[in-house]
Amino acid sequence: MIIPVKTSTGGYDIVLERGSLNQLDKYLCLDRKVLVVTDDGVPCEYAQKAAQFCKTPYIVTLPQGEATKSFDSYKLLLSKMVEYDFTRTDCVMAVGGGVVGDLSGFAAASFMRGIDFYNIPTTVLSQVDSSIGGKVAIDFQGYKNIVGAFYPPKAVIIDSNTLSTLPYRQIANGLAESVKMALTSDKDLFKLFETEEILPNMDKIIESSIKIKRYVVENDEKESGLRKILNFGHTLAHAIESENNMQNLYHGECVALGMIPMCSKEVKPRLISVLEKLQLPTCANFDSQKVIEAMSHDKKLKGDKITVIFVNEVGKFEMKDIPFKELANNFKEVNAI
Amino acid sequence: MIIPVKTSTGGYDIVLERGSLNQLDKYLCLDRKVLVVTDDGVPCEYAQKAAQFCKTPYIVTLPQGEATKSFDSYKLLLSKMVEYDFTRTDCVMAVGGGVVGDLSGFAAASFMRGIDFYNIPTTVLSQVDSSIGGKVAIDFQGYKNIVGAFYPPKAVIIDSNTLSTLPYRQIANGLAESVKMALTSDKDLFKLFETEEILPNMDKIIESSIKIKRYVVENDEKESGLRKILNFGHTLAHAIESENNMQNLYHGECVALGMIPMCSKEVKPRLISVLEKLQLPTCANFDSQKVIEAMSHDKKLKGDKITVIFVNEVGKFEMKDIPFKELANNFKEVNAI
Repeated sequence: MIIPVKTSTGGYDIVLERGSLNQLDKYLCLDRKVLVVTDDGVPCEYAQKAAQFCKTPYIVTLPQGEATKSFDSYKLLLSKMVEYDFTRTDCVMAVGGGVVGDLSGFAAASFMRGIDFYNIPTTVLSQVDSSIGGKVAIDFQGYKNIVGAFYPPKAVIIDSNTLSTLPYRQIANGLAESVKMALTSDKDLFKLFETEEILPNMDKIIESSIKIKRYVVENDEKESGLRKILNFGHTLAHAIESENNMQNLYHGECVALGMIPMCSKEVKPRLISVLEKLQLPTCANFDSQKVIEAMSHDKKLKGDKITVIFVNEVGKFEMKDIPFKELANNFKEVNAI
Repeated sequence: MIIPVKTSTGGYDIVLERGSLNQLDKYLCLDRKVLVVTDDGVPCEYAQKAAQFCKTPYIVTLPQGEATKSFDSYKLLLSKMVEYDFTRTDCVMAVGGGVVGDLSGFAAASFMRGIDFYNIPTTVLSQVDSSIGGKVAIDFQGYKNIVGAFYPPKAVIIDSNTLSTLPYRQIANGLAESVKMALTSDKDLFKLFETEEILPNMDKIIESSIKIKRYVVENDEKESGLRKILNFGHTLAHAIESENNMQNLYHGECVALGMIPMCSKEVKPRLISVLEKLQLPTCANFDSQKVIEAMSHDKKLKGDKITVIFVNEVGKFEMKDIPFKELANNFKEVNAI
């Protein structure tokens, strides 16, 4: 299945097809130099398979983990392209999760002021979320994604066969973002989470999630309005993530926790039962004071109020400014301490 | 005078007005945090004047010279914005020549995926050329402008009063780019160079040059075709610049040398007499072999041919592929050795 995405500068296709990794030449122009970027958490056969379709591939394997989204890795990719005499007509291809995609995308966006970028996400999180929408970035001085660009890929290839090598916890981690999108924008998808078996429905879940995200980014490419709904649940999630003690939780797990206090009392039990079904956490041990402190640095804070996304009814959302104190209070309900 | 420029994402205004530096609030939105970037070759009163119009200015003064267009300076600007808690609604303002403009523009383009960028060029070279067209970049591993973006400014403010503090050699350096544009695209402007006094006509020259450059960049924003004419004379210029011995020549002086072999025998004497009038060099001492070697790394080389811009008749240009050997031979005529 091809899902076209419109952008201000044209558009690109998302190919959602089992086995597409085995026929990349059908979708991509690889008759050139290709910097194939992956990390050591991704089965190496994926990047090797991709490289087989390239005329002149150069595989770069980075260490797995958020620390790789750094200036050092960015400079490393740029210096590889200089070393291999890349020109404007050559390209970068990411094979892996969100870290590899965000980092390689920014290198492609800025090398010679922008060369072609292909994204081949291999995790649920990157397939349903981070590979769509053209946001690329690195972290800097402790701030996530603070240096980057809006730079749409030339194509995104999603082969859900790659998910077979993921541990279940990583699958659930990505599904948290799908639940988030269902909750704000697609009651049928939420119903699927409530009533159907999950793994046999992965392709359907990925497709629905991509279509929600596509709708959002097509209508707000540069994040000036609607795109804020993608931050549903993320105010607490980011605060928990920036709290060192919590580094044992994945991003999607923090999002799961962050969504709970932002639902009406009618929606909340339904959300909790979906999270439990997915084996995502519904409460965790954290130092409320430290998390509130971290939230107080949130970019969405205006004076003593903060803009949040709230779900009163499944499939709909409301954007509202609430006093920061009220928000801080609400979050106590997911604290297990 | 306001010269509007259209871009794929909207557009921006170039304000060409003597004294505009003294009324920045008339043109720019400065009721926010502003990173005012300048260098120690620019009279410090220009940045101080600009800062007076800003609600919360932070002046950063970098060392003068091409070496400042580095990763280190880029990270320094980004870290200042992090340190001063800049948000997406704050902005960057360049006050200086092309180095300051290119570097600050790239920092603005990538901080939080892009914040507003104002350019206040204070040299002839940046007023007639580098501030127009949205190309921002830094140098990396010996390659000029190899990391950057196409990122249009929100406004360009050109106050030609700032030129009064420039040494004449710097003025001529910038005028070489105007002569280049006249030669390929505007016979009236070339006539002005031939027949009129130069300094009293600076505003007219700047205006005409901006309008030529605007036409080119509006029709080829991302440098896929027409924009190549801006490289007229630059194949040799870049080769001479990358040849260490020649670092005593300015960029515009190298462009002057580079244009001569790329004109017909009718145009050549007219060009030479304009260059002499401007006190720009018409020949120089260089090691032909080394310059030819440097040219062989030119990105415009395809196999043993190279695409060059050639001027047969003043105000018109021709793009042609010629054998590299022929080009290398032609250049000997500007070699004084």
